[in-house]
Amino acid sequence: MNSVPTRKSDLDTPCLVLDLDILNTNIAQMQTVAAGAGKRLRPHAKTHKCSALARRQIEAGALGVCAAKVSEAEALTKAGISGILVTGPVATPEKVRRLVELRAAVPALMTVVDHRAGVELLDQALRARGLTMDVLLDVDAGLHRTGVKPSDALELAGQILARPSLRLKGMQAYAGQVQHIQTYEERQAASLACLREAAELFRKLRRLTADCVIFSASGTGTFDIDIRIPEITEMQVGSYVCMDAEYRAIGSAGDAARFTSFAPALRLLTTVISANQNGFVTVDAGLKALYRHGGVPEIMGAEHAGMAYDWFGDEYGKVSFPDTVAPPPLGSVLELVTSHCDPTINLFDRYYLTRGADVVGVWPIDLRGCSQ
Amino acid sequence: MNSVPTRKSDLDTPCLVLDLDILNTNIAQMQTVAAGAGKRLRPHAKTHKCSALARRQIEAGALGVCAAKVSEAEALTKAGISGILVTGPVATPEKVRRLVELRAAVPALMTVVDHRAGVELLDQALRARGLTMDVLLDVDAGLHRTGVKPSDALELAGQILARPSLRLKGMQAYAGQVQHIQTYEERQAASLACLREAAELFRKLRRLTADCVIFSASGTGTFDIDIRIPEITEMQVGSYVCMDAEYRAIGSAGDAARFTSFAPALRLLTTVISANQNGFVTVDAGLKALYRHGGVPEIMGAEHAGMAYDWFGDEYGKVSFPDTVAPPPLGSVLELVTSHCDPTINLFDRYYLTRGADVVGVWPIDLRGCSQ
Repeated sequence: MNSVPTRKSDLDTPCLVLDLDILNTNIAQMQTVAAGAGKRLRPHAKTHKCSALARRQIEAGALGVCAAKVSEAEALTKAGISGILVTGPVATPEKVRRLVELRAAVPALMTVVDHRAGVELLDQALRARGLTMDVLLDVDAGLHRTGVKPSDALELAGQILARPSLRLKGMQAYAGQVQHIQTYEERQAASLACLREAAELFRKLRRLTADCVIFSASGTGTFDIDIRIPEITEMQVGSYVCMDAEYRAIGSAGDAARFTSFAPALRLLTTVISANQNGFVTVDAGLKALYRHGGVPEIMGAEHAGMAYDWFGDEYGKVSFPDTVAPPPLGSVLELVTSHCDPTINLFDRYYLTRGADVVGVWPIDLRGCSQ
Repeated sequence: MNSVPTRKSDLDTPCLVLDLDILNTNIAQMQTVAAGAGKRLRPHAKTHKCSALARRQIEAGALGVCAAKVSEAEALTKAGISGILVTGPVATPEKVRRLVELRAAVPALMTVVDHRAGVELLDQALRARGLTMDVLLDVDAGLHRTGVKPSDALELAGQILARPSLRLKGMQAYAGQVQHIQTYEERQAASLACLREAAELFRKLRRLTADCVIFSASGTGTFDIDIRIPEITEMQVGSYVCMDAEYRAIGSAGDAARFTSFAPALRLLTTVISANQNGFVTVDAGLKALYRHGGVPEIMGAEHAGMAYDWFGDEYGKVSFPDTVAPPPLGSVLELVTSHCDPTINLFDRYYLTRGADVVGVWPIDLRGCSQ
C-alpha cells in the first residue's frame, strides 16, 4: 500500500483497526477504577505490542508498562518508553547479557527472578558491568508456569538480599489460571483466594527490607476483584485496552453472561473473496491473520446476525450464514472481534486508527515478533 | 542481537533454524520425483515466506513459485523472483489495482479467477492500463474454499476467452481436503478421484483454446500420487521443503505410520526458563512462537524421548517428562519440529541456516506478515 486511505471502507484487507474513541474510553476506565482503589497501573505491552499505545497509557496515568520478553523491553526502550518491568524470568547468559545491556541504558528497568540460578546469572553480569538492578520476586500464584513456590519464596528473597547488585523491590504474582473463569462469582472466589495467600507473603517480604514496595498482580478478567486486596500496589492488566471475543464471553459484575466492563476497540477487517457455494462464503483471513485460539470470533453488525466465522486454512476463513440472512456479497468487508487478541496482534505490522468511518492515523506494532 | 553467532548453541531463543543439508535434500528429492514423471514444479512460497529459499528452489529446477496473496507476490517480485502464480482469487478494486500494478512490472505474473465478477474487475483494470494478463481458472476440487464449481467452469472459461485482456493459460485444482488423510491408500483413492475429474475438465478446456497448457495441482501429502495424473503439468507443493509434525504423522508409501519422503529441515529452538515444578518445566516458546495448529510438536533427540510439549500461554510452553527421564535443566535448549510449519514460520523474521553445530547464514523471512 502506497498511502494510507482516509476512509475505513478503502482499507485493504486483512488488516487490524483500532477504534480510537473506544480505546481511549477503555484506557480511561481502567485508570479510573485503579486510581479509585489507590492502585497504580503498569499495563502489559505484550498484548498490544505497540509503543505508541504504551505512551498513551502512560499519558493517562500509568507508571510504565510490562514486557513479557527482553526483546519487547528493547523495542519499548528504543521508542522512548520508560518504567518497564520484564515479567518473565531469564535463564541463559545470552539473555542476561541483553537484559543487563538494556539496564545500562535505562536505570529504571526492572525484571523478575524465580530461581537461584537466575539470581546468580544476573548478579554476575551486573557485577561485571558495575551495575545494580531492581528486581521483583516472581511468585507462583497457582498458574505453575513461572514463579517460585510460595514456600520457597523467603529463601530466594534471602539470596537476592545477599547480592548487593540486586535490589529486591517487591513481588509479582500473576494468577493467569483464573482470568477466564466463566462466572464472576467463581472467578472472584478463586482470585481472592490465591492473591490473599500472595499478599501474606508480601507482608513478610516487606518485613525483610524497606525497599520492598511493589506488589504487581491482576489481569483484565479480575481487575475489579483484585483491587480489593490492600497489599497490591500495581496492576499488570493487558487485554482490557483492545478486548477480544474470549474475554467478552465471560460473565462480569454487571452481566452474568457478558464481560461488559470494556468494549472491543480492536477489529479485524476481512473481505469476501469467493462466493461459489451455498450457505457460506470464503474470506481472506485465515490462520495467519486471525490466530486460532480462545474461542469464536464475533462478526459485528446487526445485518450479520446469525453469521459465523470459522478457519479455512492458512489464508482463508469460512463465513456461514442461515437461509434467513442475505449472503455477504463478493468483495464486501466484514468486521470481526478477534478470538484472543494478543497472538492475533502479533501477526500484523500496524494498526489503522479509526474514528467512525474515517482512518485518522497509523500506529506501528513495533513489538511484533519480539518473542525473545 | 547485534551479530549472528557462529555456533547453533549460541543462538538466542525462541528462533527458527533450517538445516541446510536436509533442506537441499528435500528440494532435490521433490525435483527428481517431479522431473521423473515429466512434471514441473512451482512450489508454494506461502509455506516458507522466503525469497532466498524460493531462489534456491528455482535454481534446482522450479519454474517459479506460487504466492497465496498479492502482497506475497509483491515481496517476491521486489526480491527478483519471477514465474509467480497468485493462487487466491481477487475480488475488490483495491486488490486488483495492486495486482495489475505488479503485472505492469512483471509480464510473466499469473493469477487465478473463480468468478465472473473477478473476471470483470480484472478486465477493467487491465484495459485501463492497456495490459494483458495470463490467468488460470481456479476449479473447486472438493475443498469448497475457492474455485468455480466444475459444472460452471466452462461457462466461466468462455467469459475469460471473451476478454482480449485475459489469456486463459489453464487451470488450478488444489485438493487441500485430502492432503492429511491418515492412510496412504485412502489418501491415494481420494486424490486420484478428485483430480481425475479435474483432468477431464482440463481436456475440455484445452479443446477451447490452444493457450491452455497449464494444469497446476497437488500438495506435499499427495505429491507421489498425483504425478500419475497425465494431464497435470505442474505441482504447487509447499510444506515438503521445511516439513512439520502434522505431515510427519501421516502414513506414506513406504511406512504406514510415518511420512518418510522428506525429513524435517525446520526446527524451533526453545529454552527452559523456569524449573520450579515436579514433572514439567517451562520453556520460552508459546502461542506467539509456535503456532497452535496441526497436532503435537515433536521434541528432537533420543535423550528427550518421552518428553512432551504443550502450550502454556502466549509466551510459554510446558515440557512434561516422565519419572524415568532426567529433567531438562534450567537454561538448556530443546529443538522442536513445529506442528504446522506455515503459520509458525509467519511468526518469525529470519531463519538461521545451520549445518551440524554451525550457523552458516541467515535468510530473512521477507514475506512474513504478507496476508493481504
